[in-house]
Amino acid sequence: MHPLKQLMNPSSIAIFGASNNPMKMGSIQLANILETGFEGEVYPIHRSEETVMGLPAYRSISEVGKPVDLVQLVLPTEVVPRILEECGKAGVRRAIIISGGFKEVPGELGRERERQLEEVAAAYGIRFLGPNCVGIMNSLCSLNTTTIIEPPMGGSIAFASQSGAYTAMINPYLRAQGIRMCQTLSVGNEADMDLTECLDYLRDEDAVNAVGLYVETIRRPREFIAAARETVRVKPVVAIYVGGTEAGSRSSLSHTGAISGPDELYDGLFRQAGVIRAEDLDHMLDLLWILSMQPLPAGGRMAVITNSGGPGSSLAYHLEKAGLEAPAFSEGLRKKLDEVTGPLTYTGNPIDLTFETNIFIFKQLLELVYESGEVDGAFIYGIFGAPDFMVNLKKRFPDLQAMEDTWDEGYQAFLAELAAVSAAHAKPLVVMSFLGTRSRSIQSLIDSGVPVYPSAVRSARAMRSLLDYLLLKEGISTTPSAMDVQDPAS
Amino acid sequence: MHPLKQLMNPSSIAIFGASNNPMKMGSIQLANILETGFEGEVYPIHRSEETVMGLPAYRSISEVGKPVDLVQLVLPTEVVPRILEECGKAGVRRAIIISGGFKEVPGELGRERERQLEEVAAAYGIRFLGPNCVGIMNSLCSLNTTTIIEPPMGGSIAFASQSGAYTAMINPYLRAQGIRMCQTLSVGNEADMDLTECLDYLRDEDAVNAVGLYVETIRRPREFIAAARETVRVKPVVAIYVGGTEAGSRSSLSHTGAISGPDELYDGLFRQAGVIRAEDLDHMLDLLWILSMQPLPAGGRMAVITNSGGPGSSLAYHLEKAGLEAPAFSEGLRKKLDEVTGPLTYTGNPIDLTFETNIFIFKQLLELVYESGEVDGAFIYGIFGAPDFMVNLKKRFPDLQAMEDTWDEGYQAFLAELAAVSAAHAKPLVVMSFLGTRSRSIQSLIDSGVPVYPSAVRSARAMRSLLDYLLLKEGISTTPSAMDVQDPAS
Repeated sequence: MHPLKQLMNPSSIAIFGASNNPMKMGSIQLANILETGFEGEVYPIHRSEETVMGLPAYRSISEVGKPVDLVQLVLPTEVVPRILEECGKAGVRRAIIISGGFKEVPGELGRERERQLEEVAAAYGIRFLGPNCVGIMNSLCSLNTTTIIEPPMGGSIAFASQSGAYTAMINPYLRAQGIRMCQTLSVGNEADMDLTECLDYLRDEDAVNAVGLYVETIRRPREFIAAARETVRVKPVVAIYVGGTEAGSRSSLSHTGAISGPDELYDGLFRQAGVIRAEDLDHMLDLLWILSMQPLPAGGRMAVITNSGGPGSSLAYHLEKAGLEAPAFSEGLRKKLDEVTGPLTYTGNPIDLTFETNIFIFKQLLELVYESGEVDGAFIYGIFGAPDFMVNLKKRFPDLQAMEDTWDEGYQAFLAELAAVSAAHAKPLVVMSFLGTRSRSIQSLIDSGVPVYPSAVRSARAMRSLLDYLLLKEGISTTPSAMDVQDPAS
Repeated sequence: MHPLKQLMNPSSIAIFGASNNPMKMGSIQLANILETGFEGEVYPIHRSEETVMGLPAYRSISEVGKPVDLVQLVLPTEVVPRILEECGKAGVRRAIIISGGFKEVPGELGRERERQLEEVAAAYGIRFLGPNCVGIMNSLCSLNTTTIIEPPMGGSIAFASQSGAYTAMINPYLRAQGIRMCQTLSVGNEADMDLTECLDYLRDEDAVNAVGLYVETIRRPREFIAAARETVRVKPVVAIYVGGTEAGSRSSLSHTGAISGPDELYDGLFRQAGVIRAEDLDHMLDLLWILSMQPLPAGGRMAVITNSGGPGSSLAYHLEKAGLEAPAFSEGLRKKLDEVTGPLTYTGNPIDLTFETNIFIFKQLLELVYESGEVDGAFIYGIFGAPDFMVNLKKRFPDLQAMEDTWDEGYQAFLAELAAVSAAHAKPLVVMSFLGTRSRSIQSLIDSGVPVYPSAVRSARAMRSLLDYLLLKEGISTTPSAMDVQDPAS
């Protein structure tokens, strides 16, 4: 069993650094553990308090007297090695070291302290994340050890990161997009376990369909490539790398003590590893979202179904820019489509319904284009909900409310059916919409497994990533890895 | 006075197509006009109803008996030319023709009907927008003639579009981002007034600081270039163009009857015109937002101030990728910064405060870097509000609420001061944050004129556009236009 399996699924956690002073980072973390629904045992360790936040507190780890699967330490830097040793003596084998002040700060003292951590861990067989990290989140056991509240738990995306902020501070952005996270791991300075270990662990996690990485350095390039290639055989890996410019490199060094290499070297490394490189965090999340939810297309031929010309033209343009195609439909298919739409609608691809309010037509058209065999996937623009048009009307026509409620109920059910068409044909579907997750319709689509993006370029790039993954996966199955990769940090 | 001035600021509007049936597009538009706060006269024209939505209705335009500044028509295609002629006879000189079924549909009939419109308009001196458009929005007179509710009115961005959806359906997206729109114009098939006319009008609108264009074709390239260059002397113009691929071109033709040209030709056209080309609508809005609110930098040297390494490294990386630079600070400046931050903080640029909770330090640091003369602008990551950390804590420590309220009040005031530092030094400031507009802090910053983006790449590209505009503006002042441009549609 991978050591991260126990760390991410503990039955019991001891917390160092929580107290009855709410302004301490450890207190925030303990409050989050207690409020997120974690059902294991939680032991606050405090040298003087009898209780911490209503829980019995223990003077030291040895006083707990019961097995402790995981310790999390938020303590002054200078005491961390000694406390870690006490944990080791008490039989603890997994740790998260939040405290900073190690390799990432200038000077020899920080590096020396990090070596002490490594020695203690080696002596007692402790495997740990950090130091200088923010903790973990695992929706499978409702565990959130970070300082950040309300992670949007669920889904099947995992994210391992050399930036703590990116695993935790993004929660409001995720919520706004409608993206859920299944597991996050902040690896900090990677004194022990690194991103390569995270890949080895996440590869075998059945609940995880797609893995994201935030990279400032790869410390063991050969092992990383091997681990990534094994992972890509079963699930996609998307990474961002920001060490490759002068200022980016300077910043990485001060952040996690990482020595980073030029962009091109990392491009090559990711290519060998079968990893999709995203431009930035928002782009990475766009790709992970579709990769975790939608089937892979057999090729790049796409249908566009829209009720509005601008978004339709934009989707057609951007999918071609992304290396996909929007083939003109055959006469036979157009005839079938025309029977549904009536003669005034252009059905050549894009199919432009121009302000069609009978939304149910979308499903018929989607079935026809999927069944035709002329496309490998589809984009839809034009989903909405009644409230988007009726707010002002209802002030003048109060009777509309009852009609809207009835309509809306049927409509939400219909959106699930629309998503099911994609699943039944095993062909991907992307919806473009400006409505956002405040719209019940958009939330219904997302809940049914359809990703929704607010722009054509984001929709097209997301769809393209499915094809990229298919090609990478096939490439790895047929070609051996070139293991003579140069160390990017040298 | 430009003909669009009267069209966009009418004292009286007659609406054709509204009725007491709420399911008609004209009814939705009338409800929106009435509920958005428009203070002019509104006259529904209906052949049989005595009143429409409680307003007295008129059998025909001639029965109104008072001056009508603007008519908006949502009628069956075949009657539109005749009704437009009645309006002309009654003295109406400005019209918005919503109805479709003209040049954009296949066949000679549509083109013939569009010619009829042009003839009627010429005979009576009517200037009009459309056909096949969605209406206008003008926050200056609280007017929204579109079908879409609750436009986020205000700010100083204007948007003229060959896609109706893009001027109106984006409202929820704008609200989610915190972006406001001052004026929108849907030009439809451009049978009379086109994007070039919009530029001529918007150039002299004092309330408009930045102009966006959605382009599927430019029908009069020489005039467009001339109008754009005159506009760019006083305010930036950002355009998106999506006709340049095979499917994009096919889609444009079916959408507004536009014959579009290849991408490269439009790249050249925009370059000559001094227009910034954006990739897609979301990108265009990102750029218009900063361009409408922030001062232009004197050069590309940028400071990054962060409380988190990942976002700091990402900003450093992406600003360099965007052609800006994050220069290493001088010893003299670092000494001053160190006095504020203490010795453990890296102040070389990025300045990485690593989980600093004393947010007021940001303002001191921003003043120091601006005053140093070593940078032309700055990025900040690390703004937050108390609620982001305290939600779970407060369940355990109820007394925190009062503390948080006090703190929050001071903090919101502080954010306005932070924005004022940028204004006082006339150097641009961009904030990167994942919190989104549900956060009071982010809303305070936006209200103070600071744009906030949820990713490093979006932040960096936005900042870069200020420099792009500066260079374009300088270029136009010093070089004559090459007027021998090729017609992109030929």
